Amino acid sequence: MEFIEELRSLRKQMDFDKTFDVPKKVSNVVIAGMGGSGIVAKIFQELCTEMQVHVVDDYEIPNFVGQDTLFIAISYSGNTEETLSALELAKKKHAKVVGITSGGKLAQKVRDCVIVPSGIQPRSALGYMIMPLIRSFEAFSDAEINQAKKMVESVDKDNGEEKSIAKDIAKGRSIPVIYGISPYKSVAYRWKTQFNENSKVIGYSGSFPELNHNDTMALQLTYRKNEFYFMVLCDGSNKAVERRIPITARITNTRFRTVYAQGSSRFARAMNLVHKGDYLTYHLANLINKDPVDVRVIEQLKKELAKK
Amino acid sequence: MEFIEELRSLRKQMDFDKTFDVPKKVSNVVIAGMGGSGIVAKIFQELCTEMQVHVVDDYEIPNFVGQDTLFIAISYSGNTEETLSALELAKKKHAKVVGITSGGKLAQKVRDCVIVPSGIQPRSALGYMIMPLIRSFEAFSDAEINQAKKMVESVDKDNGEEKSIAKDIAKGRSIPVIYGISPYKSVAYRWKTQFNENSKVIGYSGSFPELNHNDTMALQLTYRKNEFYFMVLCDGSNKAVERRIPITARITNTRFRTVYAQGSSRFARAMNLVHKGDYLTYHLANLINKDPVDVRVIEQLKKELAKK
Repeated sequence: MEFIEELRSLRKQMDFDKTFDVPKKVSNVVIAGMGGSGIVAKIFQELCTEMQVHVVDDYEIPNFVGQDTLFIAISYSGNTEETLSALELAKKKHAKVVGITSGGKLAQKVRDCVIVPSGIQPRSALGYMIMPLIRSFEAFSDAEINQAKKMVESVDKDNGEEKSIAKDIAKGRSIPVIYGISPYKSVAYRWKTQFNENSKVIGYSGSFPELNHNDTMALQLTYRKNEFYFMVLCDGSNKAVERRIPITARITNTRFRTVYAQGSSRFARAMNLVHKGDYLTYHLANLINKDPVDVRVIEQLKKELAKK
Repeated sequence: MEFIEELRSLRKQMDFDKTFDVPKKVSNVVIAGMGGSGIVAKIFQELCTEMQVHVVDDYEIPNFVGQDTLFIAISYSGNTEETLSALELAKKKHAKVVGITSGGKLAQKVRDCVIVPSGIQPRSALGYMIMPLIRSFEAFSDAEINQAKKMVESVDKDNGEEKSIAKDIAKGRSIPVIYGISPYKSVAYRWKTQFNENSKVIGYSGSFPELNHNDTMALQLTYRKNEFYFMVLCDGSNKAVERRIPITARITNTRFRTVYAQGSSRFARAMNLVHKGDYLTYHLANLINKDPVDVRVIEQLKKELAKK
């Protein structure tokens, strides 16, 4: 499948409706996942704050994990070393375990496993991996899920704004910086990882208002500042935080490119922004002559690590 | 007080022994704080995983906060807009509230408040703010706290390695990137904020092994890579993750400067690394002729924000 087709499959992925059982008596939820699988956990945690979710992106698990924990392991390949290690540790502590994967060892190790369609890049399978969380926890209604599908589709139809930002970044050979405003801080991190994997460009993410307590000091000065391209992800409704954008811009003499989420529910807006980042980083790859699908170096690294 | 004296006061701050009462029946702990106060919550959360701690760095609080929540508001000044907003929301949901502050509105609004000594920069008061958490939750023994004091003192006595890294960064006019290895991911973020506030330099932080799933793709190529200076914080004991450093370096042809924590307990090692970052960013400020104490632009921003 062409990479652009993988991107365009997000809308269709959101029809995926397999779920897992959520035990009634759990006192905490821990979701383990790395990279393109882990971002699903991070976005879910930020959007759905009815329960306390802890995200693990490492080999080890926190000490509080126990028999009252629902432990969800997400690995698109099913063979992510860190996630499998965390899973084993959670099992030893008698946590209730669930998996979301396209196969691999994870599918063998967990009985209650949601098997998603295989064959695409993990970072392109965000829809397949997030829907089982949304549906199993009943985090959003069918109407909200339908709105989200429409807001993904609208980016497939028109991503001109994203292309124009990609052109600006390519022209300036800039280092992208993405600041998220709640509830899109994790989407800002998603954009950062898509800049890395799709465009092969170094970049970083952060958030408002936290940056007003640190980054702001550095932005005021000119030490390399013009080499960065600053973006802000928001939806126009978080007034207390969004008023900080023009004030910070004026005081530090920095240009922020705001990207507004569209949609009539949190989930719709978050997915709209996710997809805008997909296209932006895809366009940037083309503009600077990088192959957006190529992640051979990560594969090579995994092979080297497998040599114990 | 001279800024270098503020830095050197960390050892003494760790003698601070006021505590708050930890209610026996709480089902979750939420700590709110921004910038130099918030980092205390982040470090505590990573070091002490016996209970599930959620960190808030925003105006709003997660929906799961309720009467079974212990809500801890940390603001050195006591007047941080975001933290005070989060506190009001937590009170409305009948959470048990506690404060850590040197005064301000927070001291007036919370009855069970630990009052720490005032008069220094919030980022220099990490010791005053973290000790009430460590002691109230009995997270570390007296012996471990004493080890931590010694490991802070040892950096006061010898910070030649940190000065040498600062020289490298100044010489290359580089953008610092700090990767943390568990349990020092939040210390990597502390370093990033100290680069911002003390050295007035843009930089960012991340972590191993997560970076092997995204940054690695960008590191392999040469797009601006030589403009960055990559550091890794670790302690030599996390073999599964640390073996990734030389492999990533070789495959992506990147130089990582490892900084090893010293000390015989997690807390001692974390505080040792925190203090190394304090000195490194202080030395860098001097080398590039910045005033490490100056945070006028953040003060100006707060004034602008206060105009409703």
